[in-house]
Amino acid sequence: MEQSTTLQDVLDREQITALIHAYCFHFDRNEPNALAALFTPDARVDYGPEAQLLTGTEAIRAAVAKGLAETFAATSHHVSNISIRLESATVATSICYLYAWHRYHSGAPDGELWAQYHHSFVRTEAGWRIQGLTLKAAGTKDFHRRTMHGIGRA
Amino acid sequence: MEQSTTLQDVLDREQITALIHAYCFHFDRNEPNALAALFTPDARVDYGPEAQLLTGTEAIRAAVAKGLAETFAATSHHVSNISIRLESATVATSICYLYAWHRYHSGAPDGELWAQYHHSFVRTEAGWRIQGLTLKAAGTKDFHRRTMHGIGRA
Amino acid sequence: MEQSTTLQDVLDREQITALIHAYCFHFDRNEPNALAALFTPDARVDYGPEAQLLTGTEAIRAAVAKGLAETFAATSHHVSNISIRLESATVATSICYLYAWHRYHSGAPDGELWAQYHHSFVRTEAGWRIQGLTLKAAGTKDFHRRTMHGIGRA
Repeated sequence: MEQSTTLQDVLDREQITALIHAYCFHFDRNEPNALAALFTPDARVDYGPEAQLLTGTEAIRAAVAKGLAETFAATSHHVSNISIRLESATVATSICYLYAWHRYHSGAPDGELWAQYHHSFVRTEAGWRIQGLTLKAAGTKDFHRRTMHGIGRA
Repeated sequence: MEQSTTLQDVLDREQITALIHAYCFHFDRNEPNALAALFTPDARVDYGPEAQLLTGTEAIRAAVAKGLAETFAATSHHVSNISIRLESATVATSICYLYAWHRYHSGAPDGELWAQYHHSFVRTEAGWRIQGLTLKAAGTKDFHRRTMHGIGRA
Repeated sequence: MEQSTTLQDVLDREQITALIHAYCFHFDRNEPNALAALFTPDARVDYGPEAQLLTGTEAIRAAVAKGLAETFAATSHHVSNISIRLESATVATSICYLYAWHRYHSGAPDGELWAQYHHSFVRTEAGWRIQGLTLKAAGTKDFHRRTMHGIGRA
């Protein structure tokens, strides 16, 4: 289950949570380099069927930088419902909820997204890093993507 | 007050938080059986003056299953501001905030809800379970309920 | 960094988080006295360039009471992404995200705000208190303020 049993477990969850928050903060501040540094060199990011599957820190940095430069004039990524599973001393997974607001350079109406991030993490010598991120949407309004991975609703 | 003093307190809060998250996850994935299993056999759920007061796991399961089948085509329940009070080793209460988005089978405009869950919990041999849940609304937009319990604003 | 190393660190974060939640709860319930009691006597609150900089508990109480009486018919302050930095045993800072919904006495359309709170805290003999609060906005919709401090987006 998702239960900690030791102080170390509690600290690991805190550090992983900080990583999820840092991703949002750097995205919203248009800081793609700082964002990319949160990932492992071999990390994979899947923003959905309309986006290219990203593999590796540089691909992630470049794609996020492009989106921030060309598509988004402003964003705000509100994460909650963070559920972390510590699989071992060096591997963890989590599901959290995302409510994200987007203002577009194009002048299109602001886009809203009600979604989940599904993450995997590994502990490196420098601390926990994101190894995988998949975005799954419950719903959208005026969003720039039409097709998204679903949350698996029955 | 709401302050932990021991590691056990911290772990109890973590497990109760996981329970609140699991409720949202199973609701949004249309999993009424898994949702009902989070409650005690004698649990009471009060979604507001327009809904029937639900008593017992089976009544909760049936009402949620009906709502998910007939009313909601998709939902996303974002909880935050979780404030847990450990009343004793086996009893706890909490207030958390809920921002919920709803898409309707009817095709009505998406409904939004800014609200609070007021919970009570008991520790069973199998872990913490929800014994009481009352929904109190700060406000709504295009929501399928007209009258809600208020948050007690002066 | 933001990492705890001891149980005391974990408990400090929990108490500071409770303070942020209490601010939202008392605001939304129209309880300016209880809200003001969360601040130190010399606290400073900066809601943005269109609002007066507030210094001291009484100024904060009076300004919030006025806003709640004259401007807001209902509000809901959803905080998330709470990132606390423990600077010393008695000083802390944090950044959290705010998604806030506002209904106006004027009958104007409901206002939405996607923002950050930047807090500073001090530990007093009675526990942690808020010493500084600055509101920085990523974006707004139908909000009663036109100009806000930005989040520092590059």
